[in-house]
Amino acid sequence: MAKMVPVVEEIMSANDSLAAENRADLDVHRVLGVNMMASPGAGKTSVILRTIAALGRELNLGVVEGDTAPVTIDADKIVAAGMPAVQINTGGNCHLDAVMLRKALPQLPLDDIDLLIVENVGNLICPAGFALGTHFNVVIASVPEGDDKPYKYPNIYRGIDALILNKTDLLPYVDFDLAYFRRGIEILNRGVAFFPLSCKTGEGVDDWIAWLRGRAAAFAQG
Amino acid sequence: MAKMVPVVEEIMSANDSLAAENRADLDVHRVLGVNMMASPGAGKTSVILRTIAALGRELNLGVVEGDTAPVTIDADKIVAAGMPAVQINTGGNCHLDAVMLRKALPQLPLDDIDLLIVENVGNLICPAGFALGTHFNVVIASVPEGDDKPYKYPNIYRGIDALILNKTDLLPYVDFDLAYFRRGIEILNRGVAFFPLSCKTGEGVDDWIAWLRGRAAAFAQG
Repeated sequence: MAKMVPVVEEIMSANDSLAAENRADLDVHRVLGVNMMASPGAGKTSVILRTIAALGRELNLGVVEGDTAPVTIDADKIVAAGMPAVQINTGGNCHLDAVMLRKALPQLPLDDIDLLIVENVGNLICPAGFALGTHFNVVIASVPEGDDKPYKYPNIYRGIDALILNKTDLLPYVDFDLAYFRRGIEILNRGVAFFPLSCKTGEGVDDWIAWLRGRAAAFAQG
Repeated sequence: MAKMVPVVEEIMSANDSLAAENRADLDVHRVLGVNMMASPGAGKTSVILRTIAALGRELNLGVVEGDTAPVTIDADKIVAAGMPAVQINTGGNCHLDAVMLRKALPQLPLDDIDLLIVENVGNLICPAGFALGTHFNVVIASVPEGDDKPYKYPNIYRGIDALILNKTDLLPYVDFDLAYFRRGIEILNRGVAFFPLSCKTGEGVDDWIAWLRGRAAAFAQG
């Protein structure tokens, strides 16, 4: 797309402008918004389900599900967990953008939501370029993806507020050097909150929940 | 990008035109080209290294490595295996396109190569939209990504010639319904060649190699 830089810049600023409108809407309704990004299959929906199970009684949660195809596999799981969910079908597009979220927000009961989780499309590259208007960004990595991902896909790790490393239950079965992985992250995003955990066993989930609870409390007071 | 359809179509046909030039170059030099696509961390480089180990003595192989960042982690592994390799750094872009391959081909000793493997950028969405000019396409899925990927990311499975399911050694440790996965594939691409295997243990690699050997032999005769 290098030849198209002027056009892309124009779209990006339109996106940023709509992202600001999304942010203002969330603020008016006192909704804390988080954008969750990851590779396909890293466990975005599993993290959201764990989060609903842990925080669903103390906070009102809502979920926006980004999908490239008109299947509701993930959205069905959220609804089954008793949470309001809206699905955005991107029609094959590789990321969510602020326009899509702009259309989704009015379909949610924002006055009854404290924390809105936006599950982006499974992609470790494109979502990094499109602000949605959420208050913070989280990336979910996973052990079987390999310890070299921060070196190969650096852009997505910059500017995020927390990094989850899911599927730690698979550490005994794959070659994954945790120190090498963390060094790669620290080069890109020094001091980022880091939560190794397993959605399958539940190990480590409490630390993520405690951090998220803290963010929600600070937002409610601010 | 929906608003930009006319521009995108123009780029797509420019891409297709350059892909045809790449194909002509490969044909002139009697090089069989394969485009390998996958999510980040599914095991593209591991499959290539297994392929080099199995076929490197009977065929002259060459590799083009697509990366979004200027790191040579994968290319170094290919060179260490004794094969000619060219790296394409997409500068953050989310897929290879025919222009990039057009620039890479003259840097390879095409007269001395029988089979050219192009490792696309790790992305299960965008590479599906850009022909490179290779003779066939392969997707590498992996067990820990989950059995629902064909339903969620359908476009990439259409029009491919072979599907590898890597990391079968992890089947005992993750929930993966092989029949559900295959049904999803068959809906999209009936009868596609399917190779469950483990690059870690080597199990199943022989079937993939036999299929690829057959393709190379048919190409050499044709």
